[in-house]
Amino acid sequence: MTGASTVLSAESLGRDVGAVALVDHHVHGALATDLSRRGFEELITESDRPTPSWMTQFDSQLGFAVLRHCAPVLGLEAHTDPETYLARRTELGVEEVNRRLLTASGVGHFLVETGYRGEELLGPAGMTEATGRPAEEIVRLETVAEHVVAEGTDAAGFSARFEAVLWERSRTARGVKTVVAYRHGLDVDPEPPTLGEVTAAAGRWLREAERTGSVRVDDPVLLRHLIWKGVERGLPLQFHTGYGDPDLDLRRCDPLLLRGLIERAQPSGVPLMLLHCYPFHRNAGFLAQVYPNVYFDVGLAVNHTGARSAAVVAESLELAPFAKILFSSDAWGPAELHHLGALLWRRAMTHVLSGFVADGEWSRTQAVRVATMIGAENARRVYRLEGEPGVTVPR
Amino acid sequence: MTGASTVLSAESLGRDVGAVALVDHHVHGALATDLSRRGFEELITESDRPTPSWMTQFDSQLGFAVLRHCAPVLGLEAHTDPETYLARRTELGVEEVNRRLLTASGVGHFLVETGYRGEELLGPAGMTEATGRPAEEIVRLETVAEHVVAEGTDAAGFSARFEAVLWERSRTARGVKTVVAYRHGLDVDPEPPTLGEVTAAAGRWLREAERTGSVRVDDPVLLRHLIWKGVERGLPLQFHTGYGDPDLDLRRCDPLLLRGLIERAQPSGVPLMLLHCYPFHRNAGFLAQVYPNVYFDVGLAVNHTGARSAAVVAESLELAPFAKILFSSDAWGPAELHHLGALLWRRAMTHVLSGFVADGEWSRTQAVRVATMIGAENARRVYRLEGEPGVTVPR
Amino acid sequence: MTGASTVLSAESLGRDVGAVALVDHHVHGALATDLSRRGFEELITESDRPTPSWMTQFDSQLGFAVLRHCAPVLGLEAHTDPETYLARRTELGVEEVNRRLLTASGVGHFLVETGYRGEELLGPAGMTEATGRPAEEIVRLETVAEHVVAEGTDAAGFSARFEAVLWERSRTARGVKTVVAYRHGLDVDPEPPTLGEVTAAAGRWLREAERTGSVRVDDPVLLRHLIWKGVERGLPLQFHTGYGDPDLDLRRCDPLLLRGLIERAQPSGVPLMLLHCYPFHRNAGFLAQVYPNVYFDVGLAVNHTGARSAAVVAESLELAPFAKILFSSDAWGPAELHHLGALLWRRAMTHVLSGFVADGEWSRTQAVRVATMIGAENARRVYRLEGEPGVTVPR
Repeated sequence: MTGASTVLSAESLGRDVGAVALVDHHVHGALATDLSRRGFEELITESDRPTPSWMTQFDSQLGFAVLRHCAPVLGLEAHTDPETYLARRTELGVEEVNRRLLTASGVGHFLVETGYRGEELLGPAGMTEATGRPAEEIVRLETVAEHVVAEGTDAAGFSARFEAVLWERSRTARGVKTVVAYRHGLDVDPEPPTLGEVTAAAGRWLREAERTGSVRVDDPVLLRHLIWKGVERGLPLQFHTGYGDPDLDLRRCDPLLLRGLIERAQPSGVPLMLLHCYPFHRNAGFLAQVYPNVYFDVGLAVNHTGARSAAVVAESLELAPFAKILFSSDAWGPAELHHLGALLWRRAMTHVLSGFVADGEWSRTQAVRVATMIGAENARRVYRLEGEPGVTVPR
Repeated sequence: MTGASTVLSAESLGRDVGAVALVDHHVHGALATDLSRRGFEELITESDRPTPSWMTQFDSQLGFAVLRHCAPVLGLEAHTDPETYLARRTELGVEEVNRRLLTASGVGHFLVETGYRGEELLGPAGMTEATGRPAEEIVRLETVAEHVVAEGTDAAGFSARFEAVLWERSRTARGVKTVVAYRHGLDVDPEPPTLGEVTAAAGRWLREAERTGSVRVDDPVLLRHLIWKGVERGLPLQFHTGYGDPDLDLRRCDPLLLRGLIERAQPSGVPLMLLHCYPFHRNAGFLAQVYPNVYFDVGLAVNHTGARSAAVVAESLELAPFAKILFSSDAWGPAELHHLGALLWRRAMTHVLSGFVADGEWSRTQAVRVATMIGAENARRVYRLEGEPGVTVPR
Repeated sequence: MTGASTVLSAESLGRDVGAVALVDHHVHGALATDLSRRGFEELITESDRPTPSWMTQFDSQLGFAVLRHCAPVLGLEAHTDPETYLARRTELGVEEVNRRLLTASGVGHFLVETGYRGEELLGPAGMTEATGRPAEEIVRLETVAEHVVAEGTDAAGFSARFEAVLWERSRTARGVKTVVAYRHGLDVDPEPPTLGEVTAAAGRWLREAERTGSVRVDDPVLLRHLIWKGVERGLPLQFHTGYGDPDLDLRRCDPLLLRGLIERAQPSGVPLMLLHCYPFHRNAGFLAQVYPNVYFDVGLAVNHTGARSAAVVAESLELAPFAKILFSSDAWGPAELHHLGALLWRRAMTHVLSGFVADGEWSRTQAVRVATMIGAENARRVYRLEGEPGVTVPR
């Protein structure tokens, strides 16, 4: 195929990919408050440390993508400068900015993980209000456990109390999530702990919490307990894997470390959703091919790799069957992240799949079908979005 | 170079790459029996678990490649659907399907590893009969050891008996192979065990075999013994590395784990052939650059990555000298895998090398020469295919 | 954008990238003596072992790049053969070859690491003489320590003596470097050792040196001490990471292993420069995003991946802010390596960035700015090249 006809077919495929009403199966709320320049910059990096004075976070793939793709949504020229962009953002006000960026993303359904500073963000209801689209909840296991301790429990009662609160909190949820990657690493013992071990660990935790006034759960016995109670809950279980903020040790976030857990969880029928995965997304693709209960996405990385996201998406389309790959943005805070998560994914898919078609490897029909599977259908099936929320998978 | 002339030069290079009579230096036999849809699907994935009812293995890079490239060989349109494809396959019969797919692959010489369920497949003689091309054997070390135990030996006699049977079994072989990656992981102690250690381990194995009725060898002492006896045998020694079925722990299949073994084996002059390697193929390229006795391929991954195989092949063309890279399909069972292993490799090489030429980095002459080295010449030299089989390397 | 206009814009961008006066922030001297064919081949591979008789190191990406890009600088046709190339090299003489290749590289400033067989190479002064461009020194910590022991010290005096000599040796240096990756692996205890531990380790080392007549430092206690004294020195601290010769175990050279050290060093304000990084450059990009004190390059890999270097450079442009990426060649010996380090980097950046522009993701202005940052400005800022050498960073 010559250059010109390749471009034409990419444009035509782009229209079809653009028409998919995406399911963002792992996202957080948009921020409903205006942001200073410093505040905005802090939210377009995974760093939790001060930005050095001699640099700006806008000088990054994600920063360039904001200036390229979000500026026109706010009525500015593409590739504007940060000052102009942020001034315009302030001028429009966060409500209008959110409305524009969220609706232009073409996301049709949000699964909102509320467990990380969720009180600062729009909740599922707020996301629906801003977009007119359904938004449902993913419940973070560690946050539930910390809530149980903050509300008051004793060691002997912790396990039962956690289970009761988890079921109550997830009554209308679509899934649960664990951040064991952050709190310990994915190299946890895959076996569920005994009740005696859990009670002993809960006792240590309660004493520590009393001593420090902080209720962060990071004991591997408790983290394993949360995971296995999450499996028992029967909803799809999301794992943070791969890249994130420096609170994690990336060497301990390779999803291959979950092998034992995946094998032990397989009989439960619970779908295990590996999130982000970068730079281990090829490993995730292997797991998704060989284990029927494993799914994955390259959310987060798509935003942060910007102009390079097509390469990352391409690498995610290797070993995994297409029924096992999902779309997510992992956006948290500025609605730019929600917008770009969808937009860059569509551009990346269009780029990669139109290349397959131009090379004569795939048919155009296959390309559209796979984009629809990954963008929406797989999530609709795994999370049973046509049915009532909160319903566990059949064994 | 403009788009149109790039396409022309790729076509011309593709003809030259297509004309290379490939040596498939690691392949298994084709299946001589007809396959049900379920049976076929099970053989186009590395998963050993049931395919979930809501998906088909045809929705994968390998599935799409079958429908794209094998359908025309069976007289169907490219990108046909699975039902039509499998109906046509049945209509033609496996013998005709094998004949068509195997001969159209343009493989000129097969090195057939017979150690995994070899009795269900065409052996080297059957492969020659189906194709008219020479097919010779690669002997799996673990299968020989298990045969020795199944036939009856005592612990004290195991080592000598294994050695004798290995030499007898490999009298006309071209190489030997180890699956230590599956049976333990590549993180074995690189030292050969003592005879006392081997005898003790053989005793434990014999008791276990008697107790369970199964003779699978997975004791690391015995696996190391097999490897070092394989080195002593003096034929090229193949290692499964990287990706495979979920019986392996991919974290323990990184070829970098073989460093100690590679260094200790270097004085023997035995070529160590790292198979598959994905997703660690860049690590394999490093080993192939720095150790004179290391070679590698990206077989298996080429088939399973389909439209993305050009990217994998490209990544294999980084650090390694071109004299140290080989072609293989690792096909097992359906002749589609033998066919695609060759076809996708040729397309990938053509794509990548014509890109190097179009970018002005390589000459066309260099591109054809390197394709010929990797596709055939390197294997002909390493396995001494011009000479008698079964002859050990000179120290 | 159609094929033809893409090519035009790449050419135009290439002129701007070509005009950047690069800072090669990690390079060794050029060799001032003529080379035999064998000698030349040994220096275009990282292998330290004899090249097998049936192959040539010219059959590699780096070998092809020499014949493609260096041949015209010596007045030969591109893609000439090795014999012709080396004959011409001898005919011109090493002085003329060095002059041509070094000046044609367009490097404007060399930071020369002198610690590895530096006496065989041009030093900073010699590099300036050959090129007319400033060349300043990077001091290798391990070499200083070995010099201290070779000159004579006792265990109790080692630490103070090392510190004194380090400050004297680095009085006009631009940075220091550690090869802990080679001598132990990056998996060292991140804590500085106590003086008692250092003295004890120095005692062991002195006894070993006396016994063997060799003063190689590889005790992890001492290596950690050198690193932390290097941090105290206050100049940018370079780490070899990733790929190198087989003296290193690549599994232990993943820069992610430096996490503890990076975190402990952050308050010092000392820039940590991760060199080479391949094949872990995506991990390095993660560290450069999340830690303000981390920088990295893909030097060495650019040369050794030749026609594939654009892919490696592209992968380095993912997570890291553009202010945290640098250019280096890591050339050692033949001036071809200095030349190609710069030339291939410029070609790769042009290829990758013009792709971003053609895809509509970046503006042309952004592309030129980022190339200038990575090629020169970041190094000028980090190493304070506008100011006096040898001055420590402010806390």
